[in-house]
Amino acid sequence: MSNYDLVIKNGNIVTSGDNYIADLGIKDGKIVNISKNIDTDIFYDAKGKYVLPGGIDVHTHLDMPFGGTFSSDDFRTGTKAAAIGGTTSIIDYAVQQSGKGLYETIEMWEEKANGKAVIDYGFHLGVTRLDDSVREELPRILKDGFSSFKVFMVYDGMRLTDKELLEILTIARDNNGLVCVHAENYDSINYKIAQLLSEGKTDPVYHAISRPQKCEAEATNRAVKLAEMVDAPIYIVHVSNREAADEIIKSRKQGFKTMGETCPQYMLLSIDNYLEENFAGAKYVMSPPLREKFNQELIWEALRDDGLQTVATDHCPFFMEQKKMGLDNFTKIPNGAPGIEGRMVLMHHYGVNEGHISLGKFVELTSTNPAKIFGMYPKKGTIAVGSDADLVVFDPEKEVTISVDNLHENVDYTPYEGFKVKGYPVATFSRGELVAENGEYVGEEARGQLIRRGAPILL
Amino acid sequence: MSNYDLVIKNGNIVTSGDNYIADLGIKDGKIVNISKNIDTDIFYDAKGKYVLPGGIDVHTHLDMPFGGTFSSDDFRTGTKAAAIGGTTSIIDYAVQQSGKGLYETIEMWEEKANGKAVIDYGFHLGVTRLDDSVREELPRILKDGFSSFKVFMVYDGMRLTDKELLEILTIARDNNGLVCVHAENYDSINYKIAQLLSEGKTDPVYHAISRPQKCEAEATNRAVKLAEMVDAPIYIVHVSNREAADEIIKSRKQGFKTMGETCPQYMLLSIDNYLEENFAGAKYVMSPPLREKFNQELIWEALRDDGLQTVATDHCPFFMEQKKMGLDNFTKIPNGAPGIEGRMVLMHHYGVNEGHISLGKFVELTSTNPAKIFGMYPKKGTIAVGSDADLVVFDPEKEVTISVDNLHENVDYTPYEGFKVKGYPVATFSRGELVAENGEYVGEEARGQLIRRGAPILL
Amino acid sequence: MSNYDLVIKNGNIVTSGDNYIADLGIKDGKIVNISKNIDTDIFYDAKGKYVLPGGIDVHTHLDMPFGGTFSSDDFRTGTKAAAIGGTTSIIDYAVQQSGKGLYETIEMWEEKANGKAVIDYGFHLGVTRLDDSVREELPRILKDGFSSFKVFMVYDGMRLTDKELLEILTIARDNNGLVCVHAENYDSINYKIAQLLSEGKTDPVYHAISRPQKCEAEATNRAVKLAEMVDAPIYIVHVSNREAADEIIKSRKQGFKTMGETCPQYMLLSIDNYLEENFAGAKYVMSPPLREKFNQELIWEALRDDGLQTVATDHCPFFMEQKKMGLDNFTKIPNGAPGIEGRMVLMHHYGVNEGHISLGKFVELTSTNPAKIFGMYPKKGTIAVGSDADLVVFDPEKEVTISVDNLHENVDYTPYEGFKVKGYPVATFSRGELVAENGEYVGEEARGQLIRRGAPILL
Amino acid sequence: MSNYDLVIKNGNIVTSGDNYIADLGIKDGKIVNISKNIDTDIFYDAKGKYVLPGGIDVHTHLDMPFGGTFSSDDFRTGTKAAAIGGTTSIIDYAVQQSGKGLYETIEMWEEKANGKAVIDYGFHLGVTRLDDSVREELPRILKDGFSSFKVFMVYDGMRLTDKELLEILTIARDNNGLVCVHAENYDSINYKIAQLLSEGKTDPVYHAISRPQKCEAEATNRAVKLAEMVDAPIYIVHVSNREAADEIIKSRKQGFKTMGETCPQYMLLSIDNYLEENFAGAKYVMSPPLREKFNQELIWEALRDDGLQTVATDHCPFFMEQKKMGLDNFTKIPNGAPGIEGRMVLMHHYGVNEGHISLGKFVELTSTNPAKIFGMYPKKGTIAVGSDADLVVFDPEKEVTISVDNLHENVDYTPYEGFKVKGYPVATFSRGELVAENGEYVGEEARGQLIRRGAPILL
Repeated sequence: MSNYDLVIKNGNIVTSGDNYIADLGIKDGKIVNISKNIDTDIFYDAKGKYVLPGGIDVHTHLDMPFGGTFSSDDFRTGTKAAAIGGTTSIIDYAVQQSGKGLYETIEMWEEKANGKAVIDYGFHLGVTRLDDSVREELPRILKDGFSSFKVFMVYDGMRLTDKELLEILTIARDNNGLVCVHAENYDSINYKIAQLLSEGKTDPVYHAISRPQKCEAEATNRAVKLAEMVDAPIYIVHVSNREAADEIIKSRKQGFKTMGETCPQYMLLSIDNYLEENFAGAKYVMSPPLREKFNQELIWEALRDDGLQTVATDHCPFFMEQKKMGLDNFTKIPNGAPGIEGRMVLMHHYGVNEGHISLGKFVELTSTNPAKIFGMYPKKGTIAVGSDADLVVFDPEKEVTISVDNLHENVDYTPYEGFKVKGYPVATFSRGELVAENGEYVGEEARGQLIRRGAPILL
Repeated sequence: MSNYDLVIKNGNIVTSGDNYIADLGIKDGKIVNISKNIDTDIFYDAKGKYVLPGGIDVHTHLDMPFGGTFSSDDFRTGTKAAAIGGTTSIIDYAVQQSGKGLYETIEMWEEKANGKAVIDYGFHLGVTRLDDSVREELPRILKDGFSSFKVFMVYDGMRLTDKELLEILTIARDNNGLVCVHAENYDSINYKIAQLLSEGKTDPVYHAISRPQKCEAEATNRAVKLAEMVDAPIYIVHVSNREAADEIIKSRKQGFKTMGETCPQYMLLSIDNYLEENFAGAKYVMSPPLREKFNQELIWEALRDDGLQTVATDHCPFFMEQKKMGLDNFTKIPNGAPGIEGRMVLMHHYGVNEGHISLGKFVELTSTNPAKIFGMYPKKGTIAVGSDADLVVFDPEKEVTISVDNLHENVDYTPYEGFKVKGYPVATFSRGELVAENGEYVGEEARGQLIRRGAPILL
Repeated sequence: MSNYDLVIKNGNIVTSGDNYIADLGIKDGKIVNISKNIDTDIFYDAKGKYVLPGGIDVHTHLDMPFGGTFSSDDFRTGTKAAAIGGTTSIIDYAVQQSGKGLYETIEMWEEKANGKAVIDYGFHLGVTRLDDSVREELPRILKDGFSSFKVFMVYDGMRLTDKELLEILTIARDNNGLVCVHAENYDSINYKIAQLLSEGKTDPVYHAISRPQKCEAEATNRAVKLAEMVDAPIYIVHVSNREAADEIIKSRKQGFKTMGETCPQYMLLSIDNYLEENFAGAKYVMSPPLREKFNQELIWEALRDDGLQTVATDHCPFFMEQKKMGLDNFTKIPNGAPGIEGRMVLMHHYGVNEGHISLGKFVELTSTNPAKIFGMYPKKGTIAVGSDADLVVFDPEKEVTISVDNLHENVDYTPYEGFKVKGYPVATFSRGELVAENGEYVGEEARGQLIRRGAPILL
Repeated sequence: MSNYDLVIKNGNIVTSGDNYIADLGIKDGKIVNISKNIDTDIFYDAKGKYVLPGGIDVHTHLDMPFGGTFSSDDFRTGTKAAAIGGTTSIIDYAVQQSGKGLYETIEMWEEKANGKAVIDYGFHLGVTRLDDSVREELPRILKDGFSSFKVFMVYDGMRLTDKELLEILTIARDNNGLVCVHAENYDSINYKIAQLLSEGKTDPVYHAISRPQKCEAEATNRAVKLAEMVDAPIYIVHVSNREAADEIIKSRKQGFKTMGETCPQYMLLSIDNYLEENFAGAKYVMSPPLREKFNQELIWEALRDDGLQTVATDHCPFFMEQKKMGLDNFTKIPNGAPGIEGRMVLMHHYGVNEGHISLGKFVELTSTNPAKIFGMYPKKGTIAVGSDADLVVFDPEKEVTISVDNLHENVDYTPYEGFKVKGYPVATFSRGELVAENGEYVGEEARGQLIRRGAPILL
C-alpha cells in the first residue's frame, strides 16, 4: 500500500471500449497502476461491481439567474447531488450578462463555484452578443481553458443573428474552439405565444405548443447549414426529437464535424406530462419542451447509431414556488428541471438494462465522449493510467425507486418520481478521494477544482 | 366547317395522362369538339405531329425594374418569343415597389402588359412588406383573380422576416391563396459577399460562390417548416439543386401541401459556365446561381418522382451591355437570363428524348400542373372540351440548333447557344387563333388578355 | 342522335389527368365525339355524376382449380359482379396445368370464358415450368395477344428456380413481354409450416404466421434483383406490405422498369382479421396474407408517390363450405377471397374521400395504368376519342353499406361486410352498351370479348 | 524486472476507446500491470510509438484445398507473414470435406496448423452439408471452442438451401453460435457463366462480370431476411460493395444482430484491376470480385458509421503458375489473393492517415470487434490487465512501399505492389514473446496455440 493512496480491487473495469477485471492503484489523485493483483491489505473492494469512469455532465445551470430568480441548486448542493449520482465533473454555462465581458463572466461564475463545488467543474461561456470586445476576448479565452461556448438562437437580449453565427463559427473554427448552439426558431415562438395568449391559453402545456418540434428542427438545420458553409464544427445542445436529430445525422453522413447532445428527459418523459393536473405540468417546463412519445425510441436509436454523441442533463431546477411565477401565464414559468443526480442511473437502467444501448456505449455517452469533445480527455472520461481517479463503483444489482425523498438536489420535486431502476452507484471517487457512498455525500467541502480544458477532439 | 372557327385534324393529342389521335373543333376560342373525324374541307392538318396544350410559364419577369435598369423583354417582345416557343400563357411577377399598394402594383403591371402582350397573362404579386395596407388588401386581391403571390427571404427592402412569413402564410391559407417563396439565406449571402469583395474577388463566378447550395437549402427548409407549422400550402420557386429539393420532398412525404418549381437552366447548365472567359460568365448570373453538375441528374429524378411539380423559366433577360454594370463587382451584375422561348423545346429534347421523363410528364410539368396550381385549370393547361384552344402543333422530328440568331427574345445572347434539339413547335394557337408558325410570330398585336385566376388546386 | 348510338351528357369527365364537363358521343362501341353540347333528345344524363373510364382488374382467378375444388365465381357470375361494381375489363390468370402447353392453356381458359363473360377479358398465362415447349411457344404467344405472364416463386409443381426466372425474364425482355411474379420465399414457408403443424398450430391465423412479411420482402428483392441483372422489366403482383414495396421503390429510383401491384385488402384489412372466431378467420386466408396494421398507411403512401402502379383484387372466392377443407389444418384452406365487385368503390371511398389519393390518381391506379402496363391503352383505360366506350357513371354522393346481401359475387361472404362507402356506380357501359345500372346487371349474356393485348407501356 | 517477464515502456497505448501513455508489465504471457512508470532497467522502449492490440484476422484460408491445388501459404508461412504485419491471431476456415464429419474436419485442420503456426489460431468450421451427423455434432462443437461456422450459398457440393440455412441458423441461435455466410446467388452465377463461356468470353475480367454486385446484394438480403425470420444473429463475410452492405445496415436499424465484414481489397482495388494485361488480371480473381470504384468510399463510410463491424482479409494466395489453371477459362482460376501481411498497415494508412476512420476505429475494426464477435474477448483484442500480451509496437512515421519483395507471404505477387504507406509495425509480441521485429520473423517455430473460443458478443 505504500505505493498508493488508494487501491480499488477486484472490480469489473468498464470503459467505452473494454470490460475486464483488474485492480486500480491510485496515487496523487491519478490512476497510476492497473494490475491483476495489487498486493495490499487496505483497499476498496469492488468485487461484483462495475468500476466506471466518473460521469461528466456537460450541460448544467447552477445558481443561474433566470427572470428575477435563480436556479435552486448552487455549486454546493448541485455538485453534491451529482457526486452521489455518479457524476464527477460538470461543465456549467457561464452566461454573459448584459454589459459584461467574457473574462468578467468567467470570473463571476468562478466566484459562484469556488468555495462551493465538491467535484471538478469547467465552464462553457454563453456568448450573448457579438461586439468588438467579444471579438477580442473570444480567441484568447478559447485557448485559455474555456474551449467551448454556447450561443442562442432564441431569447431576447441573448440571441445572435445568422450573420453573427457565421462570424462566431468562423472565430471558433480558427481558434480550435467549439460552438454549442441552442437551436429554436425565435420568430415562430413569439408568433405562437402571441396567438396562444390572445386566445387565453395560459396553462403549462401551451409552453410545448408554442415551441413545436418543427421549430427546433428548423433552427437545428439552420445552425448546421451555417456551420457547413464555413466548414466549422458545431455541437447542438439538448436535442429533443428525431426530426432535429436527423439534421445532425444528415450532416455527419456528409462528413461534417457536426455533433449533438440529448438529455434523459427526452427519452423518458413526453408532452403528456404537461397535462398533469393542478399546475403540476409546470415541473416539466423547459426548452426545448418534452415531445410526442414516438420520439423516445427514435432518440435511443440515434444514440445507438452514433447520430448523437452525448447525454447531458440541462439541469436547471426551480422549486414549485418559483414555478408559480407563471401560474397565469406559461411564458413566466422559469424554464428548467432537475436531473443532475439521476442521469447515470436512468441511462443505465433504461438504456442498458432495457436493451437500447450496450454498457460500453453508456460509458461513452455519459463520460468518454463528453470528455473528448470538450477537451478533457484523457484526464477525464476513462479509466487509464495517467487519468484522474474519477471513478464510480456501481452496483448493477442495487434496486432503487427514485423519489425526491432520496435525491439530494435542492428542489422539491423530481420529474422521475417513482421510476424504478436497477443499478446504482455505491461509491464515487473524485481524484482518488471517496466523496460519496451509498447515497450520501462523505467528502470534504469545496474540494472541486476548475478544469481548464484543451482543444476539442471532434467526433 | 360552319360549326367551327377552326378545326385541327389528325394530330396526336398529348395530354398529361393521354395520347391518342383525334380532330379538334374550335369555336369562340374554345375547344368544343374532340372527334374521330370532323367533316370539314378547311382545317389545319396536324398529321404526324403532336398537338399539345400550350405551355404555361409561371415565372417571368418582363419589363422588370432592377438596379436602375429594366429587363430587356417587355410584354410585346417577351410574349412573342414565348408564343413562337410554344408557350401560350405566362404569369409574370408584379413586384410591389416602395410606397405602392397591392392594387396599385397590379395596375402598374397591367399598364405594362395591356396593349403589348400577345398571349394571355396573369400576375403573381410580389409582396415586399407586410403592413396594415397589405393586411387589408391581400385577402381581397387573392379572391380577385390574383390567387398567388411571392415573398422574398432575401434582398434589402423586399425580404420578410420569419415572423412576417408566418403571418402571411396564415393569411394566404385562410383565403385560398398560395405563397411562392424565393428561398435563400440573407445573412450568409451578405457575409460571403463582404468576405469575397474584401479579398478582391469580383468576377462573375463569385456570384455563385457567395450563394452556395446550402444557402438555398437552408432557406428552403426554413420556409417549408414555417408553412408546416401553420399548416399552409407553399410553393418554392426556382429550386436549383437536390439538397433544396429534398426539403420539399421530405415535407410532401409527411403529407404537407408543399410544392416546388425548377427551371431548365438547373438541369442543362452548371457552375462551370461562370468560368467562361471575358466576362461571358455574367450571362449566367441569376439567383439562385447554377450549381455543380451532379445536381442535374438529381433534379431530373425529382421531376420524375413528383418531388418537384413545375418547370418555369425565371425569364429575366439583360443585354450584355447591361450586365457590364457589374464588370468590376459581381454584385452589380443584373440578375437574370433569358429562357422563355426555349423552355418547351429544351424540356422536350433533354427530358423526353433523352429518357429522363415521359411525354405525358413533360406536358404535366410545363402546362397542366402550372395551370392547376395557379388556378387556371381546366381553362388552361389541357386539351379538353371547354378549355381554351391554346394549342401547340409540335413536330417531334424537326431539328433545330438553338442560337441567339433564331430566337426572338430581345437580348443579345442565349445561355443555350449551340444546343441541338429534335422537336419544335410548328404552329401555336392562342384561344383558337394562329399566332406563331414555323418560328415566326404571325398573330395580331396586343391580343393578350389578363387571366383572372381562381383558387389553387394543391398537388 | 342519328350520328351516335349513345350520348352521355353533362357528366363530369374524369381521367387520370383531367377533370371537365362534356358530352360523349358513342358509335359502334367507341367514343367518337367529346363535345360541349351534343344536340340530341335521347341521351343518358350524367349531370352531377362522374364519368370514369371503366375499371380494369388485372388480377382475377375465375373458375380456377385449387386443391380439388374451383374458385366459386365463374366468368359469368364474376364478370357480372365486376360490371355492377364499375369494372369493364379483367385480365384473368390462365394457369398452365400439368402436362399442358401454353396455347392449350389459353384455349382451356377461353373455353371457360367464352359464352359466359359479360365484359371484355384478357389472359395472362401462368407459366408453371420452363421446358423446351415453353421456350418455343412463349415468344410467339407474347406477340399473339398475351403479352404478359405470371411465374411463381412458391407452390410445388409450379414454382420456377432462380435460374429459370433469369431465363424467362430474358425471353420476355427479348419479346416485349412482361413477367408478373408471385414473390414469396418457398423454403421458409415450408420450414415454418412444418414447425407450426408439429406444434399443433392449425388455426387460420397460422397461415399468416407461416408466411411473414419478410418472406415476401425477401422474394420480392430476389425477383427484382434477378430482373435488374438481365435488365428486364418486372411486375410484382399483390404487394402486401411496405417492406416488400420498398424493394420495388429502390429499384425504380435506380431507373429500372420495376412495377408493383397492390390490392384493397392490404390497405383495409389486417392480420387481426385472422383472429375472428369460429373459423371466420378463414375468410381472409390468401397469399400473401394480411399484414400488421401499420402497413396500411404506408401502402397508401407508396401508391401516392408512384411507388406502386396498380390496384387489382386477386379475386379468388370460395364458399365457407369450401374453406372448411382446412378446418383442422390451415394449409388445406383454399387460398383466396372475393373482391372484384368492391374494388372501385373501396378505392374511391377509402382512397379519395379519406384523402390518401386524388381522384385522378384513383383513375390512374384502377384503370389507366393497368391498361398501359398490360398493352390495352388507349383502347381501354381512358376517356378519349377512339377509345372503347367502357364507361362508368359514378355518383359521388351515393352512400352504400357493403354487405354480402347487396353484392353479386357468387360466394357467401365478403371481407368488407359493413364497410360504409360514399360514391357508387349508377351505370356501367361496356363498348357503349349499358350493362349495369343501380346495382343490377342489365346487359346481354355472354357479350364479353377476348382482348388481344399489345406490348406493355412500361411505367 | 523481477516481477515481469517483459516491460514495454513509454508507448502510446491505443485501444478502441482510449489513447494514453503508459508502461505495460507482462508476466506469463499476459498483461498484468499497466502503470505510469514501471521501475525496471530492462524493457522494450516504445517511446514515440503506438502500442496496439495485436491484429486479429478472422478470415484466412491457409493450406486450403481448391480445385486440385492448395493455397500457397501454409500455417507456417502464413502466420509468420501475419506476425510481421502486426497480426497476432487468426481464425482459419476448416472446411468440411466430402464425407467428413465436423470433429474430423477440426482434427484435419489442427494437423495442418499444429507444429507450424507461430501465432495463435482458431477455426471456424465450414459446414458444407446439413445431415444428421451435422445436426448431432454441431451443438457440441459450438460449445467446445468453435463457436462460429461458415455456410455457403454458392459452390457445388458445399452450398446449403434456404431451408437448410433456416435450420442451421436456428441450431446456432439455440447454442450460442454464430453463422457466417458467404452470400452470392448461385443460380445467377451459373447462368451468367454459361452465357459468357458460350460467347467465348474467358478472360479474368469475366469472373467479375459473372458475379455482379447485385448477385451478392441479393444473397446478402436473403441470408439476412432468413436470419431475421428465426431471430438468429448472422455475420456476412467479405462484403464487397455498398448495395450489399446496405442490407446489413437496414437490418441493424431494425434492431437485429446482423453483422458484416469487409476486406482491404474492396476499399483499395477495383474492377479495373481485372483489365491488367497478360493475364495479370488473374491476380485479383476472388469471390466476391472487386467492384466499381464508387463503392470504395461508400464502404469506408459503412465502417465509420458502424454499418460493418470488422476488416479481415480472406487471405488465400496462389502463385501465378497456379492461377494459370484458368488461362483459357476464368472459372478455372483458383479463387483468392494474398493479404494477411498488409491488412494492418493498409487500413492504418488508407483509413486513418487519409481521414476515413479514427485511430480508435482502426483498432476496433481490426482487433477488438473481431475478438468480441468471435468469442475471444478480453483474452484477445485489447490492451487490458488480464489480456494476452499480444501487442504490436507500431511506428506511425515509418514509411514503406509495399512490394512482393518486402513481404513474407509465400506467393509471387501482391495486389498492393507499389502502394506507399506511412506507419508500420516495428515489433510484434505474441503472449509476451517478441516474434517479429522490423520486418523479420524472430520468434520460435511452431509456437502458436489453438484458441478455444467462447460465445460471441453480438455487436
